[in-house]
Amino acid sequence: MRIPCQELADTLAGILLRRGFERDRAELCARLFAETTLDGVYSHGVNRFPRFIRMIENGSIDIQARPKLATKAGVLERWDGERGPGNLNAHASMGRAIEIARAEGMGSVALANTNHWMRGGSYGWQAAEAGAIAICWTNTLPNLPPWGGATPRLGNNPLVIAVPRANGHVVLDMAMSQFSYGALASYRLRGELLPVDGGFDSLGNPTRDPEAIEISQRPLPIGYWKGSGLSLVLDMIAAMLSGGAATHQIPADPEHETGVSQVFLAFNLSWFGNTDQLADSIIASLRDPLEGEPAGRVRYPGEQVARIRMENLALGVPVDPAVWDEVKSL
Amino acid sequence: MRIPCQELADTLAGILLRRGFERDRAELCARLFAETTLDGVYSHGVNRFPRFIRMIENGSIDIQARPKLATKAGVLERWDGERGPGNLNAHASMGRAIEIARAEGMGSVALANTNHWMRGGSYGWQAAEAGAIAICWTNTLPNLPPWGGATPRLGNNPLVIAVPRANGHVVLDMAMSQFSYGALASYRLRGELLPVDGGFDSLGNPTRDPEAIEISQRPLPIGYWKGSGLSLVLDMIAAMLSGGAATHQIPADPEHETGVSQVFLAFNLSWFGNTDQLADSIIASLRDPLEGEPAGRVRYPGEQVARIRMENLALGVPVDPAVWDEVKSL
Repeated sequence: MRIPCQELADTLAGILLRRGFERDRAELCARLFAETTLDGVYSHGVNRFPRFIRMIENGSIDIQARPKLATKAGVLERWDGERGPGNLNAHASMGRAIEIARAEGMGSVALANTNHWMRGGSYGWQAAEAGAIAICWTNTLPNLPPWGGATPRLGNNPLVIAVPRANGHVVLDMAMSQFSYGALASYRLRGELLPVDGGFDSLGNPTRDPEAIEISQRPLPIGYWKGSGLSLVLDMIAAMLSGGAATHQIPADPEHETGVSQVFLAFNLSWFGNTDQLADSIIASLRDPLEGEPAGRVRYPGEQVARIRMENLALGVPVDPAVWDEVKSL
Repeated sequence: MRIPCQELADTLAGILLRRGFERDRAELCARLFAETTLDGVYSHGVNRFPRFIRMIENGSIDIQARPKLATKAGVLERWDGERGPGNLNAHASMGRAIEIARAEGMGSVALANTNHWMRGGSYGWQAAEAGAIAICWTNTLPNLPPWGGATPRLGNNPLVIAVPRANGHVVLDMAMSQFSYGALASYRLRGELLPVDGGFDSLGNPTRDPEAIEISQRPLPIGYWKGSGLSLVLDMIAAMLSGGAATHQIPADPEHETGVSQVFLAFNLSWFGNTDQLADSIIASLRDPLEGEPAGRVRYPGEQVARIRMENLALGVPVDPAVWDEVKSL
């Protein structure tokens, strides 16, 4: 079924209001969930909303909590998320990083003690809409074995990098595993194999079977040893800058994954004049029709999202009827 | 053959002095080359020195040029590298980013119009030694096809992330291709296959043969579409923040690869007290001896470098006799 995006957002906001959210926070939180599904990131939108509600009920998320400034170290600020709703905390933190960048050229917020930010790309789009370059990432519970090991000790620590551009923002949103658990579930639900090896099965053999990896908990890091190393340093920086928990200190149960650490960097481009021409030339250079390559195979990050968004705005947002029934019962 | 590191550095410095470098710059430039080989990064140390000299001779590198401040946008500064020696420019830029960070919490230098920085890790170690977290990257000539394409239009844009730690800095230094061209050459020279697919051969088949990838110019990005996207956004940010060239504007001939763009970010940790205990706990958590995993298989980025450095300091730095003869003739 397809539901107009505004109806989706209003329904979620109504649920949050009944749970005790203040109106403006209910509306922003609901909009972030609805826009995630609108953009085709089905794993972290409406489908994830019931778990979000359960984590309010089990005490992992404090709906009244707002981030508090802990330490101001120049343009680098430490904030305590106080275990508030993860998407509201992240949105506020990126907003603050952009605000610092507007005044100082660059701003950074390191956020401790927060909750899952749902779709990381949301904060990249937020920055790009504000005309800022942004880099942000989060750590997570342990769900990725380091290269050379078989036990999940790293997080898949999604990394988001956003570049504003009038003709279409470029927004990279990627987990450190070749396939996020959300992506594995999507392939499984569609009955498809992964296009490339995505991890090891429980016997330690490389596999394209998404369910085998969900069971073994052994997804492959992107680039094998490289993504393993990248995940580690992102965790270290998030924990050390924020003073919060590292991956190994975060509860490994997804229904109780709380107290994560995040970093939000924003760069002010406006002092450098218009950068659109340069950005456009880079995008155009990706696709010079050399050597008879078929058109449309090379995409930039965010291109597909923008296309899906347009389609879902026009036709309504696809929602699984069973999920929708569950949501309306909350 | 093995040569004491100081003798190596002195020999290189002597050559640079005869070419007209000022003494302090000759010594720093030579030390950066020698330490790269000392640390086991053989592709970008002494082995690379003859090409560096050729690029002085062909006019790509101006040995007298020093970076000049172009625009100060708060803590974000644009510098023009004036096509000076790439490692000196990069060292100065990271130094400046650290200096800004000491005063302001975080500092950023975007450097346009510079030359190949040789080993990117050098500037990560530089920051870690100064107690700063650092993130830096460079763009390069086009040497990596975007995912979905067969023609190199992206750079392999090495990314360096450094985290200081008293018990061993953590320094990630990785190109966006699964194997750098330097690494491909090393495997070829040792007559070894790659441990995993590293690219496509000229027929478009995935291959572990390093030479086939050197010929096809089709290395795989780390994580397939993910590394392709990451390479793109790093190029965009480097060019847009610095106002310099993007990958598609950089000469594709390695002997004339000049005018590259780089970004150096430094974060001041000192205002947050001692972070070593947290850093140590993260490293320790990587290697909990769970489930009978063999010890020593899980490493953190920089661990192997530190081990090789110790060994080469004790025994002398391994140098290929033919390369050494060539260097001494310069």
